[in-house]
Amino acid sequence: MKKLLLIPLLLAAAPTPPAAPKPAPSPNEIVAAAPATDWVEIAASDLLIMDLAADAKGRSRRVVIQLMPAPFSQGWISNIRKLAAAKWWDGTSVNRVLDNYVVQWGDVTEKKALPDGLVTVPEAEYDAEVPYVMLAIPRARPVMELNAYPNPAEDTYVSTSMIVDGWPVAMVRRPKRKGERWLKGENFYDRMWPTHCYGMVGVGRDMPPNTGSGAELYTVIGHAPRHLDRNIALVGRVIEGIEHLSSLPRGTGALGFYEKAEERVPILSVRLASEMDTDKPLPRFEYLSTESASFAQYADARANRRDPFFIKPAGGADICNIPVPIRRSTKLQTLR
Amino acid sequence: MKKLLLIPLLLAAAPTPPAAPKPAPSPNEIVAAAPATDWVEIAASDLLIMDLAADAKGRSRRVVIQLMPAPFSQGWISNIRKLAAAKWWDGTSVNRVLDNYVVQWGDVTEKKALPDGLVTVPEAEYDAEVPYVMLAIPRARPVMELNAYPNPAEDTYVSTSMIVDGWPVAMVRRPKRKGERWLKGENFYDRMWPTHCYGMVGVGRDMPPNTGSGAELYTVIGHAPRHLDRNIALVGRVIEGIEHLSSLPRGTGALGFYEKAEERVPILSVRLASEMDTDKPLPRFEYLSTESASFAQYADARANRRDPFFIKPAGGADICNIPVPIRRSTKLQTLR
Repeated sequence: MKKLLLIPLLLAAAPTPPAAPKPAPSPNEIVAAAPATDWVEIAASDLLIMDLAADAKGRSRRVVIQLMPAPFSQGWISNIRKLAAAKWWDGTSVNRVLDNYVVQWGDVTEKKALPDGLVTVPEAEYDAEVPYVMLAIPRARPVMELNAYPNPAEDTYVSTSMIVDGWPVAMVRRPKRKGERWLKGENFYDRMWPTHCYGMVGVGRDMPPNTGSGAELYTVIGHAPRHLDRNIALVGRVIEGIEHLSSLPRGTGALGFYEKAEERVPILSVRLASEMDTDKPLPRFEYLSTESASFAQYADARANRRDPFFIKPAGGADICNIPVPIRRSTKLQTLR
Repeated sequence: MKKLLLIPLLLAAAPTPPAAPKPAPSPNEIVAAAPATDWVEIAASDLLIMDLAADAKGRSRRVVIQLMPAPFSQGWISNIRKLAAAKWWDGTSVNRVLDNYVVQWGDVTEKKALPDGLVTVPEAEYDAEVPYVMLAIPRARPVMELNAYPNPAEDTYVSTSMIVDGWPVAMVRRPKRKGERWLKGENFYDRMWPTHCYGMVGVGRDMPPNTGSGAELYTVIGHAPRHLDRNIALVGRVIEGIEHLSSLPRGTGALGFYEKAEERVPILSVRLASEMDTDKPLPRFEYLSTESASFAQYADARANRRDPFFIKPAGGADICNIPVPIRRSTKLQTLR
């Protein structure tokens, strides 16, 4: 087959010298070229808008958070919707900034009464069952295997990471059940959970079995602290304005807490975009469908950089090094 | 053996009810308890001290960088020593801050003449040969296997990460040579390189085959950009004061460059600690020997958190999630 193809290629090449090969596109170029149909709009009811007090130069600081879809963390997320509706965060503050770790906000006094109707979510909801359809129709692609430390043979914790429906997710293999027959290379998973990547938003809590209400939130501003996975609830991610949190001065107290009241950044308001009382239409946001051909090409390019700056493609990428592309849509949110 | 031990334990436990089990120590507690003999001093000649202009409140900003040992990047590091000795960075600036990526500094005009005697380092020095002694006496422990994306079977790039002699290092397996016999489970490595973890310092460069002189430097302020491994030279890491870089306002220009001159942070001076002209003794620094029992315990605890806050140990940690503990020593640097 190869030999047969060789002849026409040589003939074709003979008359004119071959054109210089087009350089391989960068991940950003692939995203920029993705067709409009590959982008998925994020519902306004899943956007949490946090307005901080203006900075020292009087510039406004808005942070936009996308809440996570079912089956993840829905108990905490329902609390967060209630807290936003009750305007509970208005007048609270950003209280903790620990370098290469997290920025945390909420009520520093820990005495502000919570609104009625919040639920207490059990630890069991730090992860979720893998739906059968996800296994039967594997649209997601595994990106990394995190093997056990120090001895893979001794401690067989193995998780597989995937980016599915726009979110980074890890899942754990389950052991073979009695009488079950698996085909060679076949694996089954039973539990899955979102992963602590840069910009992910989680729920601060006290010592277990406390799981937090959702009133105390943090976002990751450093290398993915994956040891927090399945130990704290993740509820969303910052999709715009993370620099208003990540570039804050680091706290000098224990765990990065600010020691002086004037260091804290006041929170003016936190609202769902769908419930905001505003005259100005809000921007809409959309993410690159992680099930699209564009995303597959983007993820492959993140793992194997072939654009001209690079000389050695890595041949792999961990799940937090393939951030899901998110952008402002050209459409504006309709007003309520 | 186990059975013999069981009896005295049961006997000992019989008279009094067992005391509540002592909670497992956290990684920080393990580091705090490490004996003085497990700490290794960093030579003053390997410390690069960068003083930035004072901040808006008049507070001084000092960044301390530890340069990497042989066999890594020694050509670039010899250039950096010459640039510091020539006071070349004095009057240059921090020019670029890209969120979740890097902070970069050097001569923004790109016109400042470099001192004589700098070497041009070839791309081949982005990695180094694995010394036989490291394979024969595996003091380092592998922490992660980064498998290929999208299909491990198709693209068999596999690297093993280790923390060795105080530094995070990846190495790549080499294929079996003709006639060679490997024992079951045996692997051989030929090339190794330092990894782009948070706080690592690298050499900015133009398009390949340019490899950079060392005059333009950056540090990582986000999730480990491992795709840069073997594509850019790493020369060290920030061991104190990274918050003076990571909390700078993000640049609004392309690639995070500052658009206005007044946004740039002036660099007052960059010197080797061993060549500093100062009346005040400088602090000394030491790292927790990565070959010590304390480090093994610390790394295990990072991978398997058992301290009371945690309910599910991760069972693994990637190499950039086991930062090497570094602290000020109680001793002061002697003055020159």
